Amino acid sequence: MLSKVRIALDAMGGDAGAAVVIPGAAISLGRHRNTEFLLVGDRARIEPELEKHPALKTTSKIIHTDVAVSGSDKPSQALRRGRKTSSMWLAIDAVKKGEADVAVSAGNTGALMAMSRFHLRTLPGIDRPAISAIWPTRRGESVVLDLGATIGGDARHLVALAVMGAAMASVQFNKPRPTVGLLNIGTEEIKGHEEIREAGEILRARNLPELDYIGFIEGDGIGKGLADVIVTEGYSGNIALKAAEGTARQMAELLRNEMQRSWLSKLGYLFARSAFQALRNKMDPNKSNGGVLLGLNGLVVKSHGGINAEGFAYAIDVGYEMAHYDLLNKINQMLNREGGALNSVQSAQEAVS
Amino acid sequence: MLSKVRIALDAMGGDAGAAVVIPGAAISLGRHRNTEFLLVGDRARIEPELEKHPALKTTSKIIHTDVAVSGSDKPSQALRRGRKTSSMWLAIDAVKKGEADVAVSAGNTGALMAMSRFHLRTLPGIDRPAISAIWPTRRGESVVLDLGATIGGDARHLVALAVMGAAMASVQFNKPRPTVGLLNIGTEEIKGHEEIREAGEILRARNLPELDYIGFIEGDGIGKGLADVIVTEGYSGNIALKAAEGTARQMAELLRNEMQRSWLSKLGYLFARSAFQALRNKMDPNKSNGGVLLGLNGLVVKSHGGINAEGFAYAIDVGYEMAHYDLLNKINQMLNREGGALNSVQSAQEAVS
Repeated sequence: MLSKVRIALDAMGGDAGAAVVIPGAAISLGRHRNTEFLLVGDRARIEPELEKHPALKTTSKIIHTDVAVSGSDKPSQALRRGRKTSSMWLAIDAVKKGEADVAVSAGNTGALMAMSRFHLRTLPGIDRPAISAIWPTRRGESVVLDLGATIGGDARHLVALAVMGAAMASVQFNKPRPTVGLLNIGTEEIKGHEEIREAGEILRARNLPELDYIGFIEGDGIGKGLADVIVTEGYSGNIALKAAEGTARQMAELLRNEMQRSWLSKLGYLFARSAFQALRNKMDPNKSNGGVLLGLNGLVVKSHGGINAEGFAYAIDVGYEMAHYDLLNKINQMLNREGGALNSVQSAQEAVS
Repeated sequence: MLSKVRIALDAMGGDAGAAVVIPGAAISLGRHRNTEFLLVGDRARIEPELEKHPALKTTSKIIHTDVAVSGSDKPSQALRRGRKTSSMWLAIDAVKKGEADVAVSAGNTGALMAMSRFHLRTLPGIDRPAISAIWPTRRGESVVLDLGATIGGDARHLVALAVMGAAMASVQFNKPRPTVGLLNIGTEEIKGHEEIREAGEILRARNLPELDYIGFIEGDGIGKGLADVIVTEGYSGNIALKAAEGTARQMAELLRNEMQRSWLSKLGYLFARSAFQALRNKMDPNKSNGGVLLGLNGLVVKSHGGINAEGFAYAIDVGYEMAHYDLLNKINQMLNREGGALNSVQSAQEAVS
């Protein structure tokens, strides 16, 4: 594909808004020249930032609004106050209208989910969308979902997550039948919540052509790369993600501090700089920024709220790749293939219950 | 206290049994000479291991049984098959009878919980015990619970965890009123499960003298050391712990590999060895091994199952310290002080609901 990728950015989302979003867009543009941006937000905030990035300015259009969704708004409040007017809504709306291929926001997760679901609607067979992301592992990368879109959920929801995650992994990793594991607190069949055990039974019984279900995986199995796709509901997925990110940051900081303690270790740092750089490249949580909202009729990417421009640029990169490789259509085709994996899951569950 | 600490070890627990438990005991004995061990398990397996550690042999007594709780036993099966006969039960039984001050097992978590609860009984006001552990943070250490004893739980359960965790932290860190945070997927009051929000309301409304409730904490807030005590139910606590441990292992391994890539980085490693050692000392998951079962009339420590002798020794150390400093009595006193924090929580909940 040589056509331009059109990306709508919520320029009022996240802790810093335009001050991070605009320089982030400039960084991402440096990596993918064939991008056009719709910058949605307060023109008075966007323009001064844009002046600093002339290349970005020539390829951007501003959609002005001064209505922002607040980080503390409940999803229902955000919908009531920000529908049709907020920067978040208008970025999603650009996707809905076909004016953008993907929307990226660092705003309030709950509001982003609610607005995306309300405006773009979910795919057939999907009740509740999910946030998925690429997790660096010992063996490469895995898709992990749900990272916080939907709290809790029954066995059918977990199975839908498995199918969506497998579709994403098969496209992303070019694997026709990716391995899927359910996150649990033990690998024995008797462990964990009822709904996890039931989802495991359904996945095993169905033996879907789209995915290879390999059983339960514990929290440390994600980083080991035990499966291409790790499935869990949004609360525990979010906790796992943030606990892992926090540990990575903590270790990096500790190592940095220790390296500064003596001239000998400082020297050692200089010698081993490439090793540290490789570590940072692989384990920097900023680099994993950008969760894809799965299950919608449109592409939306969620960035962390408290991120710097470089981190936000990675979320834009995710959106760029999803759009550039037409992943949404590919995922949807997979979900709907031969009557749809999800429909067969539905009837399977009826058979089990 | 100069009296001996008597530790009962389940010598058949964990992936390796006596082959890890006995050398682990020898390592821990090297650190605390005033220890006596009750080694519970198959004499034929224990004795050959014991021959290798003469100092341990002189301070140990074997309680023979050849019944082991299997890792795949459900708690109810373990109780049915292993009650009064298994090495796990007999180690707990030694605590119950006052023949040991603490029991340490690397066996099946669910079975250990069930047997401990059945045999030792819970403290007044506590329905379900918890596993708590010390988590290394940027600012020092925090108590995190529940790490997998009880899946799910209502607001009252979370409040009980908060009170138990605060009691442990106040003793362990010598802080009269430790700060307590509830693990959640956001810091706003509207986030997360109903029961977490309700527990937050109760803790805020009660303003207990035993703890300083500071609100919700996200997964990356644990490692930041945002609170002395982090409270969550057992499923997400276990996921968080293992995701963090997995990340720590992954980073350490990655760094090791990168350091071996060139002679320059190998040289750097030599120069900065003390920094790496410090990192390992602080972030080695083995060193955090040893979860204390809270809420019981007796001290029980749970070790990871898949651990080496050094890791198991840390779990014994935790048991040693708990017994040596008489933590159980101190925690119980705190729980029952002035009618008991838990009782006042109970009435608070009635008032709220």
